[in-house]
Amino acid sequence: MQQELTKELYDRIKALIADQQESELRTAIEDFHPADIAEILDELSFDQAIYVIKLLDSELTSDILTELDEDIREKVLKNLSSKEIAEEIDELETDDAVDIIGELSELKKAEVISHIEDVEHAKDIVDLLRFDPDTAGGLMGKELVKVQENWTNLTCVKEMRRQASEYDRVHTIYVVDEHDVLKGRLSLKSLLTTSTHTPIKEVYNPKVRSVNIADQDEEIANIMQKYDLFVVPVVDEIGRLVGQITLDDIVDVIKDEAEKDYQLAAGLTDDVEADDSIWELTRARLPWLVLGLFGGMGAASIMGGFGDAFDSHPELFLFTPMIAAMGGNVGVQSSAIIVQALANGNLKGSLWTRLVKELSLSLINALVVSVLIYFFSHLIQGYQTQVSIVVALSLTVVIIVAALIGTFVPLFLNKRGIDPALATGPFITTSNDIFGIFIYFFIAKTMLGF
Amino acid sequence: MQQELTKELYDRIKALIADQQESELRTAIEDFHPADIAEILDELSFDQAIYVIKLLDSELTSDILTELDEDIREKVLKNLSSKEIAEEIDELETDDAVDIIGELSELKKAEVISHIEDVEHAKDIVDLLRFDPDTAGGLMGKELVKVQENWTNLTCVKEMRRQASEYDRVHTIYVVDEHDVLKGRLSLKSLLTTSTHTPIKEVYNPKVRSVNIADQDEEIANIMQKYDLFVVPVVDEIGRLVGQITLDDIVDVIKDEAEKDYQLAAGLTDDVEADDSIWELTRARLPWLVLGLFGGMGAASIMGGFGDAFDSHPELFLFTPMIAAMGGNVGVQSSAIIVQALANGNLKGSLWTRLVKELSLSLINALVVSVLIYFFSHLIQGYQTQVSIVVALSLTVVIIVAALIGTFVPLFLNKRGIDPALATGPFITTSNDIFGIFIYFFIAKTMLGF
Repeated sequence: MQQELTKELYDRIKALIADQQESELRTAIEDFHPADIAEILDELSFDQAIYVIKLLDSELTSDILTELDEDIREKVLKNLSSKEIAEEIDELETDDAVDIIGELSELKKAEVISHIEDVEHAKDIVDLLRFDPDTAGGLMGKELVKVQENWTNLTCVKEMRRQASEYDRVHTIYVVDEHDVLKGRLSLKSLLTTSTHTPIKEVYNPKVRSVNIADQDEEIANIMQKYDLFVVPVVDEIGRLVGQITLDDIVDVIKDEAEKDYQLAAGLTDDVEADDSIWELTRARLPWLVLGLFGGMGAASIMGGFGDAFDSHPELFLFTPMIAAMGGNVGVQSSAIIVQALANGNLKGSLWTRLVKELSLSLINALVVSVLIYFFSHLIQGYQTQVSIVVALSLTVVIIVAALIGTFVPLFLNKRGIDPALATGPFITTSNDIFGIFIYFFIAKTMLGF
Repeated sequence: MQQELTKELYDRIKALIADQQESELRTAIEDFHPADIAEILDELSFDQAIYVIKLLDSELTSDILTELDEDIREKVLKNLSSKEIAEEIDELETDDAVDIIGELSELKKAEVISHIEDVEHAKDIVDLLRFDPDTAGGLMGKELVKVQENWTNLTCVKEMRRQASEYDRVHTIYVVDEHDVLKGRLSLKSLLTTSTHTPIKEVYNPKVRSVNIADQDEEIANIMQKYDLFVVPVVDEIGRLVGQITLDDIVDVIKDEAEKDYQLAAGLTDDVEADDSIWELTRARLPWLVLGLFGGMGAASIMGGFGDAFDSHPELFLFTPMIAAMGGNVGVQSSAIIVQALANGNLKGSLWTRLVKELSLSLINALVVSVLIYFFSHLIQGYQTQVSIVVALSLTVVIIVAALIGTFVPLFLNKRGIDPALATGPFITTSNDIFGIFIYFFIAKTMLGF
């Protein structure tokens, strides 16, 4: 049942394209899932891919379009006329249609919409285009099956037959009143197990969780995960059922969110992938490196200010990478825990209890590593007791300060409405490098008096 | 429809518990979703929570149990007898039941199973307990609706009524042959739109994607995401339908995977949360800090070996935190991109094209920051041209080496079957610190000849 995407298959398809064996090519490709075909197209040159797309049925190519990588899709759409795009759009469900049209220029958008044949479909799409893509309105599809509460089971089945025949998948049967206000849902079970003359009013389940049209995607993701929902209805300001969001769309939100946090922690802005161009990757990476460089310049300037230490205690300079690295590591650990707790919405307790916990935690960690570094410095490297104490004591202070900064900064950013994930990674390591070096030399100067 | 979990509610519940107002307490809590009740219990003291759990119906408490945090659930289960746990298990679907029983000791496991009243349910659970929790067998539930291909539509509806009445949610109707071998699925649409005497054979959809009972959870997550599946049937070695996996279970796999990568990159082992005990958090954090410390000791030893530089070029030591930090940052960026591409299964091209791309990319980044550091060192800080060249050149080499290590190591680990995410975070920063410092002083010694 499941065909494999092998190198042999790719070679065969490339050969068929070269020989322009149209019908054979069509049979070779047609039976794959659109997601697989998108993967096949990804392996072809751009001209080959366009050739294949123009060969296939628009019903199939429309689904392939939704599966393609955004940058390839952009190029493909540029090679299609507005009328051709409209034909693809005609085949798609509204939420997918909006995703694709949303990527076009304003001019092309209007042209494509004017070419859509099904007027109702075009209206729905225009409606949806108004919403911010990150809200319920932007995520939802208009396709759903709804029945009225004052119908009987029999009317319901008839009406559902009519509605369902238009859609690929029926997730839930919604129950609305005569003004389209969402009242509840009808389970397949009760539809199957009640007599045909029972009014829907008596058998529907009034417990249905809905989201508002303006709700943010992350909020919706949290609700769907918490309550294990496969689909959630969307209502407008006065409770009318206007669409539904399915879990597969939300999976993308959940993944994107997790990946974004990860990328920020690793010092990557923009949503980059390994296959992106060198220019895109540079734009995502270089700003963070320049930030790190400024941090390094700051650390160098601070150390320059304590330059007298070169004469009396040059060995102090051997420990600066260690001090900086430990401050950075602790800061990243602390901030990551906070960022993740904020993302999952399970951060409890006040700021103070949080800081006190972090303080005790970092004190334990600091004591262990400080004892280790003391032994290394004094016993293995043979530096003076006093110098070794300075190194160990500084390490303790640096770890505690780094932990508090790592805890406090993301909480502060979050309070101010800024993405706390910005505070992980290069930002926190760079600032902790500078603080760490300063604390270290300040303690050294105070205790050793150079 | 949606009640809010407010502080007032918590206060009211605590007051009712204190006054032992059992029936009022029951009404106050009962109408919430089990996930909400789990959140309420989380706000109570442990004794209060146990009091509430023992008060509620086992049908409700069983669902609450599946929603509780693992550590709280463990404590709750210790306070219940084997018979009481068996009563909860009796109410649960097999996959949730297995998750809970799986956490018990071997002795208690056997006791609980012997107390389960429904023998079929107990058999299913015993079957499922055999599978690794990270495989299809461990994730699937046994509850599903299946019909035989040689039945008519009418028999189907009758049989489905019987089967569906046992389950809360019906996702898909599976079609099997007389040996239970999976043949396809029946859409609600075709069930609703065909006449009652049509044999199922003629209307079912033979295109159904299934997973094998031994497939790994990440593989299943990729398949369900790629093909937008809400539910996937699980078949055994000879194609018999043995269970199904729903997308909500897979969402947890996707999230856990993303969070694990993030935590490893941040230097956290084990799946820790902000609310975990100080001991658990220390166990997750300290090993990475000790690793970082060893890195710092290594860097100190290397610098000690180049100690002659203190006499001729002490300013070299001012740039060591910068060199170490830049090596670390670049390494984390490179490895994060590879780890993410591996996780999403979209890493294309050979190792060589990948390394060449990373090489060109890091060369661009390196040139920009090296020019900046040259100006800073020579023009702003006023160090000799030669020293400034050494700093800038070393930075370029360190960045390139760090990028290559960051690209190569996760690819290598992945090839060897080791989680590539281990190579991000402290591991890569620590090794890059050491390499960076060595490269820097080696170039300095060669060029400045101290």
